[in-house]
Amino acid sequence: MKKLLITGAAGALGRAMRPRLAGLAETLRFSDIGAMEPAGPNEECIRCDLGDAAAVHDLVAGCDGIIHLGGVSVEDKFSKILHANLLGLYNLYEAARAHGQPRILFASSNHTVGFYRQDEHIDATAPMRPDGLYGVSKCFGEHLARMYFEKFGQETALVRIGSCLEKPSNHRMLSSWMSYNDFKLLIECVFRAPMLGCPVVWGVSNNDSRWWDNSHAAYLGWKPQDNAEIYRAELDAALGKPDPKAALHVYQGGNFVNDPIFEED
Amino acid sequence: MKKLLITGAAGALGRAMRPRLAGLAETLRFSDIGAMEPAGPNEECIRCDLGDAAAVHDLVAGCDGIIHLGGVSVEDKFSKILHANLLGLYNLYEAARAHGQPRILFASSNHTVGFYRQDEHIDATAPMRPDGLYGVSKCFGEHLARMYFEKFGQETALVRIGSCLEKPSNHRMLSSWMSYNDFKLLIECVFRAPMLGCPVVWGVSNNDSRWWDNSHAAYLGWKPQDNAEIYRAELDAALGKPDPKAALHVYQGGNFVNDPIFEED
Amino acid sequence: MKKLLITGAAGALGRAMRPRLAGLAETLRFSDIGAMEPAGPNEECIRCDLGDAAAVHDLVAGCDGIIHLGGVSVEDKFSKILHANLLGLYNLYEAARAHGQPRILFASSNHTVGFYRQDEHIDATAPMRPDGLYGVSKCFGEHLARMYFEKFGQETALVRIGSCLEKPSNHRMLSSWMSYNDFKLLIECVFRAPMLGCPVVWGVSNNDSRWWDNSHAAYLGWKPQDNAEIYRAELDAALGKPDPKAALHVYQGGNFVNDPIFEED
Amino acid sequence: MKKLLITGAAGALGRAMRPRLAGLAETLRFSDIGAMEPAGPNEECIRCDLGDAAAVHDLVAGCDGIIHLGGVSVEDKFSKILHANLLGLYNLYEAARAHGQPRILFASSNHTVGFYRQDEHIDATAPMRPDGLYGVSKCFGEHLARMYFEKFGQETALVRIGSCLEKPSNHRMLSSWMSYNDFKLLIECVFRAPMLGCPVVWGVSNNDSRWWDNSHAAYLGWKPQDNAEIYRAELDAALGKPDPKAALHVYQGGNFVNDPIFEED
Amino acid sequence: MKKLLITGAAGALGRAMRPRLAGLAETLRFSDIGAMEPAGPNEECIRCDLGDAAAVHDLVAGCDGIIHLGGVSVEDKFSKILHANLLGLYNLYEAARAHGQPRILFASSNHTVGFYRQDEHIDATAPMRPDGLYGVSKCFGEHLARMYFEKFGQETALVRIGSCLEKPSNHRMLSSWMSYNDFKLLIECVFRAPMLGCPVVWGVSNNDSRWWDNSHAAYLGWKPQDNAEIYRAELDAALGKPDPKAALHVYQGGNFVNDPIFEED
Amino acid sequence: MKKLLITGAAGALGRAMRPRLAGLAETLRFSDIGAMEPAGPNEECIRCDLGDAAAVHDLVAGCDGIIHLGGVSVEDKFSKILHANLLGLYNLYEAARAHGQPRILFASSNHTVGFYRQDEHIDATAPMRPDGLYGVSKCFGEHLARMYFEKFGQETALVRIGSCLEKPSNHRMLSSWMSYNDFKLLIECVFRAPMLGCPVVWGVSNNDSRWWDNSHAAYLGWKPQDNAEIYRAELDAALGKPDPKAALHVYQGGNFVNDPIFEED
Repeated sequence: MKKLLITGAAGALGRAMRPRLAGLAETLRFSDIGAMEPAGPNEECIRCDLGDAAAVHDLVAGCDGIIHLGGVSVEDKFSKILHANLLGLYNLYEAARAHGQPRILFASSNHTVGFYRQDEHIDATAPMRPDGLYGVSKCFGEHLARMYFEKFGQETALVRIGSCLEKPSNHRMLSSWMSYNDFKLLIECVFRAPMLGCPVVWGVSNNDSRWWDNSHAAYLGWKPQDNAEIYRAELDAALGKPDPKAALHVYQGGNFVNDPIFEED
Repeated sequence: MKKLLITGAAGALGRAMRPRLAGLAETLRFSDIGAMEPAGPNEECIRCDLGDAAAVHDLVAGCDGIIHLGGVSVEDKFSKILHANLLGLYNLYEAARAHGQPRILFASSNHTVGFYRQDEHIDATAPMRPDGLYGVSKCFGEHLARMYFEKFGQETALVRIGSCLEKPSNHRMLSSWMSYNDFKLLIECVFRAPMLGCPVVWGVSNNDSRWWDNSHAAYLGWKPQDNAEIYRAELDAALGKPDPKAALHVYQGGNFVNDPIFEED
Repeated sequence: MKKLLITGAAGALGRAMRPRLAGLAETLRFSDIGAMEPAGPNEECIRCDLGDAAAVHDLVAGCDGIIHLGGVSVEDKFSKILHANLLGLYNLYEAARAHGQPRILFASSNHTVGFYRQDEHIDATAPMRPDGLYGVSKCFGEHLARMYFEKFGQETALVRIGSCLEKPSNHRMLSSWMSYNDFKLLIECVFRAPMLGCPVVWGVSNNDSRWWDNSHAAYLGWKPQDNAEIYRAELDAALGKPDPKAALHVYQGGNFVNDPIFEED
Repeated sequence: MKKLLITGAAGALGRAMRPRLAGLAETLRFSDIGAMEPAGPNEECIRCDLGDAAAVHDLVAGCDGIIHLGGVSVEDKFSKILHANLLGLYNLYEAARAHGQPRILFASSNHTVGFYRQDEHIDATAPMRPDGLYGVSKCFGEHLARMYFEKFGQETALVRIGSCLEKPSNHRMLSSWMSYNDFKLLIECVFRAPMLGCPVVWGVSNNDSRWWDNSHAAYLGWKPQDNAEIYRAELDAALGKPDPKAALHVYQGGNFVNDPIFEED
Repeated sequence: MKKLLITGAAGALGRAMRPRLAGLAETLRFSDIGAMEPAGPNEECIRCDLGDAAAVHDLVAGCDGIIHLGGVSVEDKFSKILHANLLGLYNLYEAARAHGQPRILFASSNHTVGFYRQDEHIDATAPMRPDGLYGVSKCFGEHLARMYFEKFGQETALVRIGSCLEKPSNHRMLSSWMSYNDFKLLIECVFRAPMLGCPVVWGVSNNDSRWWDNSHAAYLGWKPQDNAEIYRAELDAALGKPDPKAALHVYQGGNFVNDPIFEED
Repeated sequence: MKKLLITGAAGALGRAMRPRLAGLAETLRFSDIGAMEPAGPNEECIRCDLGDAAAVHDLVAGCDGIIHLGGVSVEDKFSKILHANLLGLYNLYEAARAHGQPRILFASSNHTVGFYRQDEHIDATAPMRPDGLYGVSKCFGEHLARMYFEKFGQETALVRIGSCLEKPSNHRMLSSWMSYNDFKLLIECVFRAPMLGCPVVWGVSNNDSRWWDNSHAAYLGWKPQDNAEIYRAELDAALGKPDPKAALHVYQGGNFVNDPIFEED
């Protein structure tokens, strides 16, 4: 690729992935509403509010690939979600449509299906069951992307990220964890696939205890290498025996199912 | 019911249904952003912008049932859809949550699945395939409703209305038409069911050529009585032989699949 | 048929069906552990404890059809269920095997699936979810019958009776009711079918609000004629608005899900 | 339609349908390898061997619809099936491709699925299980039609005819019978549908005991009116109690499953 | 765990597993109706007839986990199966309910599905097809466990053991074999899972030729390590070419499908 | 095996496999319509036109296994396909029936499903969607084989070969490639399986990007060892970035979907 745009670059996931993306494109264009580390060689850094259509239009110009990590990434007030995740995503897709439809990797979320129980095994055809407003906004995003695909041919990978962290920090993540390296491998697969289409991909490592079935997306050739299982003993020692009745261990969305609706100011 | 709220009362469907709803509740509260016919006996009329949270809060107070026909009902600028169908729906559900969770009938749409072809037969588990921004907003609405159901127990009937008109006006509607009387019968079923849950219901009459399968919702006891078939000869005479390649006759969403993204001012 | 055996003839359902079965066979042999009305023309009445293998062996001799209504038909102590529904059923199938394998209609029950919710629509492939020891005994019965079918060719109709009464007596039965006449029609279909096999059949009338799908058994040609819907107004008047949170209106098995395990003496 | 071609016009089904098709098109062109009744008003009769590509090419010229009943219609020597049903069908589709792709109704057969048992309920997605060389030739035909549809847009209704006779002549046909009038209604639906696609349609009346599910093709608007059930008493009287072990009553294909491979001369 | 109860400890499987379970709990309580090896350190041995409710009540007291291998484990007289597998299991679940619902691993069996053919691949949703009275008793056990789960929250792993032996002893076991070590790993997974629920788990090693799909239970994190394939050459040499028509090689239940009903004394 | 027949031995695949099959049987009988390499030790070479029934009859005599690679293997004139793939296959099955029904491995093809897109993941139950006359002939072959299985017990493995070559030569083959060695392993599994039945097997290596699911055929114990992924860099270097709109990268059948119908002479 000539130029790859990464939104949400100042967020936790964006910062973690930034050094791992070098080499994916001649230029990496990082963007966030907040402050980012200064641009290094072959990097650009552009601050941008996703709710600002004109700014997003300019941001996308010249890019032939987009990794969209931007927007609100946890439960929050609806006004904020509306601005960043609903309006912001629309702005992004309109900008992409105006600029030749670069392929998009959209960071969707396991919170689109958070109300499934952890003893349920689901694939990409399972009806969505979002666990909060954030999850609903990701459902919206997946459907917006699908509409742009069917109507205009815009390709998107709808990556339902589980828990993308350095390592699992509780027992739920023994199932939901995706390592940074496996995410990197997935990104490579998404942008190298001859035809992408608009698939849901479960963003999860090769964990022994995973809940999700990616076999429909085998054509991408993604083979995650890591397995959260190696952290089990460490978690057992640190956290003790998990409470089988706690939402954290009952629902795929974990504690999100107990989040309230956040009050507006 | 004591008081039933009907939003979107000044729209075409709202106006058509208004006289048919008498007797469903002691008081009918009609609402719209636009002007309505004056209130008759046992009626109230309240103008309200769905995007105004406080106004919606007041509107819902005292109601033990809601028929939500309000919002943008065709393809339009995203800013308008965002205001009425995304923010507006959130406001409605928050108001319902604040006021004892009256049962809701949400007017969803066949445009949530508009990209299926007319020779496909689908049921409520078919993945959504919206045909425009309007359809995407209805997908959002269905997921928001489901989240409020799973999280708070709010019951909603997600009625994917086909073509609710006096009678079919083109060949596509021989499949998608729902008569006003069948809609009335459905409304009665939704509000009388001992337990509603949060089902998708295809809003379609008993048409010989229907595409949609409602058997999963048989527990509601809805038996639509009308059949668009009786209008076929009339349509044949008026419109001639339908073009098999036209979007109107290829896609379940008809011409909506060809609608452009409307430009903002 | 020459001789048709009906067990459980002194039970409520047995008594109701007895006059309706005249003409199905040259002789009707009624049986129960308790006292029955005296035998009329073309009738025999034989008292028999299903747990007594020798007695059951004699009971089945000479019969070319069996309607097995006998055994415990509500939640009860396990010792009683064990005797009548587990041992008793084994005795019946052994007797049938010894006597030429007369076709059997086994009165199974909706309580094999009582934990499904009333807004779920299921067919015969849905995994069993019994709601008590009685329901578990009917699961046992269905599997015993299937084993005798696959191993020995014994044909059985596994009729999961909903609520077979004169008329519905609560709102749940608007969905689960089977009229006596529809049961009679089903019995005729079961014994006249050229090949029966070992199908599950949902024993339910043509109710608007039914939960169960019999389309897999269409080959039997059963068309139930009655519809519980005609009793709705009467029930509404008598019982008022049903409580949406009551087990009676939430679960397909109704109040059975709340039955305790009955203590042995 | 201007001109409708009906092949196989001298066969039993062709002769029965001929008078019922008047009015479907301005001209009806009947064809067969054998002798036909002379042409009446608005009729043409053309003898044609389907294995003769040039003759078939001419036969199709000028037609805007085809009902293809021609070819071998029972188990026969492979050489005859090869000529009429494999080569003949290829010739027909090539002729249609050369002449503007008139819509085709292809008389497929229940013998594509003849090895299913009569207590199995199947829909159009059930894998084919042909019961002889004739059935295999109809599988070939369905796949040939599908390929022409996907590759060239040629529309075909793949009508799996059950037993299309004046009335049922054995107990199997209580399930498989299609009345002449219901076939006529289906033909009308196939040629009037705005978009046909390439659906499988089970050619069966509204029999109480039918095995096949046409709900996927509801969009055609076909509502068969007849029910073989009315002939049951007559068949019972004439034929006595059916043998439950006979292939006629075990398999959907009936006695065809016992047909040998016919020896070539 | 503090104390783990293992029933059936004097049986072949119980004896094989006994040394492998050390370390799973502070105390291992072994039980059987027959004589066991004397208790070693951290072990208890208690003789108990599962059909004796009071004895089972005492047996379960103080345990926080149960591995239920007890009962009849092959085809036998119904009276014996009734006593040990039906009454005995009820006694066990009642005892567990009285003592805080310790998690249970129930040794179910492949004979719940023994009539599937070996060229069929099934998962946990496949309808049961038991191959004898023993298999029927295991179906009963699975449904009893499910009822206690849905009604009272009792968790059970329903482990359908294939062939748990030192090594495969015939060609069928190349598919059905579970090594002792893989069973031990499964036991660990069952008792460590934060939430168990009530899943079916196919008790089979990672055999190249396995018939069963455990992907629905991936959340347990069980990764069997052994593969029966390594014994193929040895079996080929010892047994020669297997007879493709023998029940042993046709049915998943192998020779059990040919077992007769055992006569009572 | 005593004698294994391999048809199509002079074709590309036949020539590649010939040296790899030594040891599978005491004698290998190679056949083709064209010239073959001379027979080596334990080999026979017999020229044979598959369309010649008598010659095929003799060819099969004495064989206890058949690998049928013969016939037309690419898009061609229908007359040639008719002769070799339709008539030729019938001749082969009749010869097998006359000679004790030796087990057959039939080289079917991915072109039976060529119209699926490359972002679709399918298993053996997916309805066939052939991409040309060649594909249709392979559909015919699979159904012919199934009929001989259900009617006469003839076992066949229906191997839908992807791209069986030395190594992948374009990006599509990163998904569809089967190595020669993996084909050899499959052949061994097919002929050693105690019971084969008549399964579809996707002939594809363990490629990261495969489209097809073989889990239903796990009972054969085939574990392909190779992975096309190792050739990706080489293909990227040689061919550059693949065109996402080219049929080669859109359809599972690749360029075959664009092949015309070949004109007869």
